[in-house]
Amino acid sequence: MNKRLQLFSDWLQEQHISLAFITSSPNVFYLSGFWCDPHERLLALLVFPEGEPVLICPQMETARARQSGWGYEIIDYDDTSNPWELIARHIQARNIAVEQIAVEKSHLSLERYEQLHTYFQANTWLNAEEKLRQLRMIKDEKEIAILREAAQLADYAVEVGVSAIREGKTELDIIATIEYEMKRKGVREMSFATMVLTGQNTANPHGVPGQTPIQRGDFVLFDLGVIVDGYCSDITRTVVFGSATEEQKTIYDTVLRAQLAAIDACKPGAAIGAVDRAARAVIEQAGYGPYFTHRVGHGLGIEIHEYPSMNAANTMPLERGMTFTIEPGIYVPSVGGVRIEDDVFIADDGVGILTSYPKELIVI
Amino acid sequence: MNKRLQLFSDWLQEQHISLAFITSSPNVFYLSGFWCDPHERLLALLVFPEGEPVLICPQMETARARQSGWGYEIIDYDDTSNPWELIARHIQARNIAVEQIAVEKSHLSLERYEQLHTYFQANTWLNAEEKLRQLRMIKDEKEIAILREAAQLADYAVEVGVSAIREGKTELDIIATIEYEMKRKGVREMSFATMVLTGQNTANPHGVPGQTPIQRGDFVLFDLGVIVDGYCSDITRTVVFGSATEEQKTIYDTVLRAQLAAIDACKPGAAIGAVDRAARAVIEQAGYGPYFTHRVGHGLGIEIHEYPSMNAANTMPLERGMTFTIEPGIYVPSVGGVRIEDDVFIADDGVGILTSYPKELIVI
Repeated sequence: MNKRLQLFSDWLQEQHISLAFITSSPNVFYLSGFWCDPHERLLALLVFPEGEPVLICPQMETARARQSGWGYEIIDYDDTSNPWELIARHIQARNIAVEQIAVEKSHLSLERYEQLHTYFQANTWLNAEEKLRQLRMIKDEKEIAILREAAQLADYAVEVGVSAIREGKTELDIIATIEYEMKRKGVREMSFATMVLTGQNTANPHGVPGQTPIQRGDFVLFDLGVIVDGYCSDITRTVVFGSATEEQKTIYDTVLRAQLAAIDACKPGAAIGAVDRAARAVIEQAGYGPYFTHRVGHGLGIEIHEYPSMNAANTMPLERGMTFTIEPGIYVPSVGGVRIEDDVFIADDGVGILTSYPKELIVI
Repeated sequence: MNKRLQLFSDWLQEQHISLAFITSSPNVFYLSGFWCDPHERLLALLVFPEGEPVLICPQMETARARQSGWGYEIIDYDDTSNPWELIARHIQARNIAVEQIAVEKSHLSLERYEQLHTYFQANTWLNAEEKLRQLRMIKDEKEIAILREAAQLADYAVEVGVSAIREGKTELDIIATIEYEMKRKGVREMSFATMVLTGQNTANPHGVPGQTPIQRGDFVLFDLGVIVDGYCSDITRTVVFGSATEEQKTIYDTVLRAQLAAIDACKPGAAIGAVDRAARAVIEQAGYGPYFTHRVGHGLGIEIHEYPSMNAANTMPLERGMTFTIEPGIYVPSVGGVRIEDDVFIADDGVGILTSYPKELIVI
């Protein structure tokens, strides 16, 4: 078994769990190496404390599962067969007593729970999600190499966006140019809806891009990422069009100093909360404390938001292999907002930075 | 109450359901007019057999909910408060006995079910999904007008794609051009991942676009749609680059005749199965029966796949206000595939067609 499956299986054994029924695409991908969006159909990975795992997938996906390297049993089904019965039969044939079942409680639907419940009635239902979040939190070198590639494409996407800035171009115009160029580079999917905001829209960390045209003196904020081999990047840069006011320069400088202070606080063994507080201290000292309204970052990997959560209250120590964003921001209503975000990873001896688009204030 | 909420509330009364707890974004949008993607946070609509409904949403969404026209109570919550407690308190204050609860069983997670279960233990849990699918299946004139607008943008997207065809351009190049132009037109989101396939890739109805370059003699297949005001369009057109072989012409002609026959079979009162069979008969007669491997279409609306399912076994009669796709196809391995798809609606006296890009064989 691969190391991930082995660790997960060991955990099942420790916890006296009879089987784990994993159905979310990210967790199935993490454990099996097979990425599949089965839409309304059932995709599941059965993992046991002893013995080999089994993949359940629609018949039309079997060939892809094999191509992706899955070497264990596959139970596949077509639209006329009942996958639940096939699963029940398989487990019966294994001759194990099913007492505790681990599922993904925030993902498993009530409908599927009821199906499972028909076959395995007298059970305790445990949540496997916390364990899987913890396993996924620590990336190996191959994962970090993929994240680096995704980060480099995100750098390039910002470069494309910055080059496309012209007076009167709208937020959606710039997004169209960026995504066009990324598709031409072979990128199939962005990590999330590309965000380009300008003017006062930048003051809203949840702003939605629209037809607002770029005007002289505006901030232009880019927040975007791409997916490479199933892993997400996430970068934010903010530039000024025309010329910057003193206030804009002060805000920018403060965010940049906060971001550098947070990166500087990233060391193996340091508490995660200290990273957030390092950025927050700089921003508070500059008098902008109330305008930094979110945590300093989030874990990054197969999903755009993973463990660890980079918030002030998190006492977990940083560990080698953690990958996350560092993205402080200041959002002043009627003035505008600045956010600067890098993707970083914890190495044996400190922090590595995956994104590399310049961070000094760029005036276009 | 709006008509949709009233009909749903009437159903709750008929079925003796104490309350419905609706959490999927499409159903909340359908009933409330408020579109929200709450990510991991809770969005819910509580509907009762008597009395006014209540919307539960994150505090940061309250203003948008009001702007979208929601006139009833909102229970909003921030990240420090427990929405489940607020909901329980609200229901307690209404002083109703909660006996039967309707939820969306394929959407409600086990985690949320367990939360609800903490507060409402001795209940029967019913599925509200079938009823909501039936309500959503019949569109009113305003919905059809929006779908028409979405269809017209899809027509334009195909036009852009066809104009972009050049020898050596890849599938992803053409997609990039289409989506760029759609974004410039103000389209925020496509209905699904835009599909442009060429050559032998067209023979796979689930093909994934990639770096395959267009060559002389290739089919080029477009399958795409856009979202307008929450409603999806979906069009497929297939053209030939360079010149068409006799076999390509025969396949194309057969699919077109099948598609027209299916549209011709669309009349209020006709069985849905007859529409599929009308297309299938044409294709079978031409000897391509085994290569038409899917149903003739699917309902279309807030989601890209809705009721009615346009398959041969569906005995439901067509009704005024149903909107769906008609999309027969022939997929011959090592030759290629052709699919032609329109969006249609059932009117009082027949069928209306929403998409209008030309359907005669186009050779570029």
